[in-house]
Amino acid sequence: MVGINPGAKNLRVRNLESGKETEEPYDRLIIATGARPRELNLPGTDLSNVFRVKFLEEAIRLKKFLDTEKPARAVSIGAGFIALEMAEAFRGRGLENTILHNDLLPGGKLEPEIGELVRKELEEHGVKFVPNAVVKEFKEGAPGRVGEVVTTGGNYPADLVLLSVGVVPEVKLAKDAGVALGPTGAIAVNERQETNLPGIYAAGDCCEVKNRVSGRPVYLPLGDVANKQGWVAGENAAGGKVTYPGVLGSAQFKCFDLEIGQTGLLAQEAEKLGFSVHTQLIEDASRTRIYPGSRPILVKLIIDRKSHVLLGAQIAGKDGAALRINTLAVAVYNQMKIEQLAEVDFAYAPPFSPAIDPILVAARAAAKEMAGEKT
Amino acid sequence: MVGINPGAKNLRVRNLESGKETEEPYDRLIIATGARPRELNLPGTDLSNVFRVKFLEEAIRLKKFLDTEKPARAVSIGAGFIALEMAEAFRGRGLENTILHNDLLPGGKLEPEIGELVRKELEEHGVKFVPNAVVKEFKEGAPGRVGEVVTTGGNYPADLVLLSVGVVPEVKLAKDAGVALGPTGAIAVNERQETNLPGIYAAGDCCEVKNRVSGRPVYLPLGDVANKQGWVAGENAAGGKVTYPGVLGSAQFKCFDLEIGQTGLLAQEAEKLGFSVHTQLIEDASRTRIYPGSRPILVKLIIDRKSHVLLGAQIAGKDGAALRINTLAVAVYNQMKIEQLAEVDFAYAPPFSPAIDPILVAARAAAKEMAGEKT
Repeated sequence: MVGINPGAKNLRVRNLESGKETEEPYDRLIIATGARPRELNLPGTDLSNVFRVKFLEEAIRLKKFLDTEKPARAVSIGAGFIALEMAEAFRGRGLENTILHNDLLPGGKLEPEIGELVRKELEEHGVKFVPNAVVKEFKEGAPGRVGEVVTTGGNYPADLVLLSVGVVPEVKLAKDAGVALGPTGAIAVNERQETNLPGIYAAGDCCEVKNRVSGRPVYLPLGDVANKQGWVAGENAAGGKVTYPGVLGSAQFKCFDLEIGQTGLLAQEAEKLGFSVHTQLIEDASRTRIYPGSRPILVKLIIDRKSHVLLGAQIAGKDGAALRINTLAVAVYNQMKIEQLAEVDFAYAPPFSPAIDPILVAARAAAKEMAGEKT
Repeated sequence: MVGINPGAKNLRVRNLESGKETEEPYDRLIIATGARPRELNLPGTDLSNVFRVKFLEEAIRLKKFLDTEKPARAVSIGAGFIALEMAEAFRGRGLENTILHNDLLPGGKLEPEIGELVRKELEEHGVKFVPNAVVKEFKEGAPGRVGEVVTTGGNYPADLVLLSVGVVPEVKLAKDAGVALGPTGAIAVNERQETNLPGIYAAGDCCEVKNRVSGRPVYLPLGDVANKQGWVAGENAAGGKVTYPGVLGSAQFKCFDLEIGQTGLLAQEAEKLGFSVHTQLIEDASRTRIYPGSRPILVKLIIDRKSHVLLGAQIAGKDGAALRINTLAVAVYNQMKIEQLAEVDFAYAPPFSPAIDPILVAARAAAKEMAGEKT
């Protein structure tokens, strides 16, 4: 595909074998061009031992490199989901792994207490996490390969570099055709996944999605979001009338043995939006304490001080943390007041939960603290 | 305690050592007399190898009997939580275990498809489940001991009998004092845990609780309910003003490797209340199918055909079934329409969930089927 002509409603398509270009008419068009790894505009990112794992081909190339070159030291740039999942893979293969991050804590958009748990988990599994390290250069060692990563926080020898600094939406085709981008730089769509141009829809990692809590468009290139946007774009393009009203921003990930779940807004995000925020942080047990497998679990709730409505939540722990977040996603969706959440009866049996589930403990504690507050 | 005099606001108390009775005044009184095992009015229930495990003393007596007498065949009467948990304990100690049940399927108040999974799980773990067997007699074998359980469905030799046929509220003290009982036979209370008599509260297994979905009082002697009623009764008796608006009927249990979670109404209960019910049953995977530990999971939703509101749900499976039920409890609490539930973004990561969580798969399937229905 080399171009879209929205006026004539056709596509300019190039045959990759013959190089021949043809025009293909369309009635409705769905743009699903996805995303590509964000690049650092720095010397050395094109050296042969620098990897991104956005595409299967690149993962295969990385695996082959690990098998044949037996690198000893992997240096990861960035500390999001990809870097954390790859840390487990690197350590599993016996490599040293250093994560260089331009922020204080790993794990992407996390509450500081949760990010701190991720940092500890990395450390406990022999991963060196370096905060506040901004990469300046990938210095060549052996010919054609990075030998050292030069940062504002020191130099790190590397046999292999993982670039895991996020993705950017692939929007060139859309933009050239006059499709409007949103404030995030991704394609702007409405609830029907329509772009600004008649008959042209967009879905997946190339477009924005509305955050239901803030009401604002965000760029959230996650698989389940893309999946649902695809359904809606497809059904509407085929003449249906369905909507995708947006996301709460629910996500979960695993870092070694630690599970992390999140939904809704961070405290900081909520404050930026003008909310006066009450945060409630509790630690409890994932199951009745005497039950085998019971582990500490951390619950943090982000609550609007004025309305007492739950705006967001994060949970972390080594047992039952990730699955519990969906319960809070449904609570955020329903704009529940914290007092309402506190009175829901959760199921209880010692193999699965304490008599009062950690989520309820947090909600109850918040309700109690907020009852005494002046708003 | 031998009596309550609500008029004089005092209690008649007997000292268990001296036998002396005194009167103790009260301003506010909380009745928390709990429950006792339901008895079968049949010959032989008082024989020494018949056990109930409601009280710690009885569990200790049972354990001692197992250790010293080395019984080979345990016969359980009833197939609720206690019988199922004890089945695991009996099999773990190498005993044969037969469960005699006066209904078709084990597991208490379950949807038939879920009860069938429980039945299979028992069978796979070598427990013999006998449906439709009503006990007629506990026949003495060795002197003072049951040797055989005589039922409408045959005779079962037994070295040990477990009576697990539920509990009844302990209400004598309350009833004698003029405290009103509700339709379930347990003490009637309002949302403040007040009985009909001024200054007298009740909490726990001796009293009823309102089912929020049906609006009716039910008898649900569960630990978390008792716990919360105790808080409310205590705070109100001390001059506070708090309420306990009731339960959805959430519960969970483990039967060998199978997890079962339930909340809200059963299809049958909803129909009895006058709802026209749509049920949605799906099987999916607990995690992304390629991820180690992924297991089949069954989700059944009970939906009001007219309003599309979720009335109840049950989940069963060997991975992540029990914890998922709380998400549906919050959905039932909020009287969510099934179309709303279908559009919530659940967190997704392969170690914890498929891209579209089984709950969402069920909600989406229901929304699709119901969209075409005439109401």
